[in-house]
Amino acid sequence: MAVVETDTKTYSRRLAERARAASKGLATASGELRDAWLRSSAAALREATASILEANARDLDNADGFGLTDAEKDRLRLDRKRVDAIAAGLEQIASLPDPIGRVIDHTRRPNGLSISKIRVPLGTVFFIYESRPNVTADAAAICVKSGNAVILRGGKEAANSSAAIVAVLREELVRHDLPTDAVQIVESSDRDIVGHLLRMNDCIDVAIPRGGAGLIRRVADEATMPVIKHFDGNCHVYVDSAADLELAAKIVVNSKCSRMGVCNACESILIHRDVAKTFLPKIGKELIERGIQIRGDEATRAAIRDAIAATEEDWSTEYLGPAISCKVVDSLEQAIDWIERYGSHHTDAIVTRDLTASQKFAAGVDSAAVMINASTRFHDGGEFGMGAEIGISTDKFHARGPCGLEELTSYKYVVVGDGQIRQ
Amino acid sequence: MAVVETDTKTYSRRLAERARAASKGLATASGELRDAWLRSSAAALREATASILEANARDLDNADGFGLTDAEKDRLRLDRKRVDAIAAGLEQIASLPDPIGRVIDHTRRPNGLSISKIRVPLGTVFFIYESRPNVTADAAAICVKSGNAVILRGGKEAANSSAAIVAVLREELVRHDLPTDAVQIVESSDRDIVGHLLRMNDCIDVAIPRGGAGLIRRVADEATMPVIKHFDGNCHVYVDSAADLELAAKIVVNSKCSRMGVCNACESILIHRDVAKTFLPKIGKELIERGIQIRGDEATRAAIRDAIAATEEDWSTEYLGPAISCKVVDSLEQAIDWIERYGSHHTDAIVTRDLTASQKFAAGVDSAAVMINASTRFHDGGEFGMGAEIGISTDKFHARGPCGLEELTSYKYVVVGDGQIRQ
Repeated sequence: MAVVETDTKTYSRRLAERARAASKGLATASGELRDAWLRSSAAALREATASILEANARDLDNADGFGLTDAEKDRLRLDRKRVDAIAAGLEQIASLPDPIGRVIDHTRRPNGLSISKIRVPLGTVFFIYESRPNVTADAAAICVKSGNAVILRGGKEAANSSAAIVAVLREELVRHDLPTDAVQIVESSDRDIVGHLLRMNDCIDVAIPRGGAGLIRRVADEATMPVIKHFDGNCHVYVDSAADLELAAKIVVNSKCSRMGVCNACESILIHRDVAKTFLPKIGKELIERGIQIRGDEATRAAIRDAIAATEEDWSTEYLGPAISCKVVDSLEQAIDWIERYGSHHTDAIVTRDLTASQKFAAGVDSAAVMINASTRFHDGGEFGMGAEIGISTDKFHARGPCGLEELTSYKYVVVGDGQIRQ
Repeated sequence: MAVVETDTKTYSRRLAERARAASKGLATASGELRDAWLRSSAAALREATASILEANARDLDNADGFGLTDAEKDRLRLDRKRVDAIAAGLEQIASLPDPIGRVIDHTRRPNGLSISKIRVPLGTVFFIYESRPNVTADAAAICVKSGNAVILRGGKEAANSSAAIVAVLREELVRHDLPTDAVQIVESSDRDIVGHLLRMNDCIDVAIPRGGAGLIRRVADEATMPVIKHFDGNCHVYVDSAADLELAAKIVVNSKCSRMGVCNACESILIHRDVAKTFLPKIGKELIERGIQIRGDEATRAAIRDAIAATEEDWSTEYLGPAISCKVVDSLEQAIDWIERYGSHHTDAIVTRDLTASQKFAAGVDSAAVMINASTRFHDGGEFGMGAEIGISTDKFHARGPCGLEELTSYKYVVVGDGQIRQ
């Protein structure tokens, strides 16, 4: 791959055209061959541990210059165990069923035509992500497993680590006689390149940004191809009048506290008025014990002394940290309306023993995932049994919820006849 | 609905917000109720025939002012029989299975969680189309059947006819206690309104333009929401060395001549060199007899005296009329490469008795539909057994090929537990 180019547009064009050409070769490569590549890439990554760690050390040397926090440095840092985990991830993806070439629907028409709807790759993916180096291997693996060529554009903080990983993956593509440019990485942090690539919809079929809302918005605004967006999760747990309150407390605590910095963490509790007096002091104690600040309406504050007043902004805030908003509602309907108004259509849960209430909630809440008596934290490709995911889509078009292998595919119709003509 | 607004942006905003509000009501309305609306709308349209014909007469009076050709006027003209056909179309859509609420996938996880993937409406559709009034009823019916609210923006040439039809549909929505604004029509030909609506992705989930390439391009460029695009069909028939030549001639003639002005008509023939000498004179005669001009490469012109020389532009031209391009190729591989280079990924056919050749062609040609020993003209929602279609998508994202009811839907995950929390 060319290293530095003075003309970013020419450089971007070359990346895009190579990806397109590679995608054609990949689309007809067997699943067996793609899996063989994944398995031997895993072995080759383990063998290349020393050079990967060396590259990673250079990234860590630069980390202070980029102003990385300690937590960010920790996420950037690789060691033998983490390289092994990256390799194991590739092996796990190799073990998943091949999504490509499957007949996903079939009809035989009265005139004898046999119409098969067959899963095919989307083509080429432009994946724009932030700094963790394991994402580089993971994204490349998911794309190639689903028959797509990928252009990776990671954060500059992990540039050396990612380049070392990609070099291994590309060598293994060559060894397996697969198109080398099935995996390419943008070797420059020039932001113009992202802009150029986002305009090349003749070569790139989908853009997937993974990172903060600002990045996603920029990509969505500039892209001329479809974008799979992964926006905020302002997730709610609604505690119904018919809730088992022990179970409700367990679910709220797990949804909020099991991991706070993730999109499927709970950010807001709604409590039916009939159970508020009993439930509020109980959940207040549990959350405050865990260091969570409660921002509530008047009823909440009346029951939980340490709760502070929620502002209008709180109701739509994704804290990703130790705070939660809390409101008492008069009815299931009010809870649904509230979630539709302030939620982000990501993940919302109800805790109830009432079948009708659960059905109304599931039908009325327009979110990618609706949980009934379960933690919001289960909204995840792995927990859904998909095996691998490239993100959680907050769109309704094409892919919604966890994006695994199938979400990176399209389909074609193959129609077989014996001379049928249309009257 | 308000009739005229001086401020097109305010007017557009109101349409969009009403559509969004209506979509929420529609999403939870039963399939039975939506079908009842379709059936009684059919009856009401028949009863309103006189007033619809009167509105249509006004459109026809204006037709010369809009510079409509005789053929266009014919397509615009309604009579009792055509109104009856529109009504019958609604009844036919009512008889299709309800796509909404179906469990399209289900998993039970080891921890006991039951995960259902359930079909839901996309939400609101902005449908922009050209002048035939029957499309107004058809599009409204398909959208509401699939649980979506629709904003219709038809051509000004059919404005009175479309308004009369929409008035009937809205009256029936009221009668069935369904949201009236599930069907709205833009009552102004001001092009600004289209621009405003295309920027309202908070209220509109998908834009569907149906018409010429210029319209589609404009919508795709300006839209901030996903667009289902229906671009050109530069469809090929490849006559393989192992083709049954009688059958090949029948398929070429049908693909080209059964209806020329449609996207699934054949625009280009590729012929394997081994059969060119036999096949060319035969197909040349048949096409010329039917008034088709042949634009060919040298080999074609050597065999067909009346063929004229094809220019580079011809190879990628969708004629939609009595012309066809014709080229002799050396191999199946060359045919596939040619189609990938000049085709439009819409519909391409192979005629062959060779199983391997048919498989290679089906795998190598990246088109929405690949036909094996069948006319390209079968690429159609009706012929595929979908019952109703709103267009044929040339995209790979979300929907490819005929867009019926399912292609206007999304899905959500409903996860049912009994208190599961994530470790």
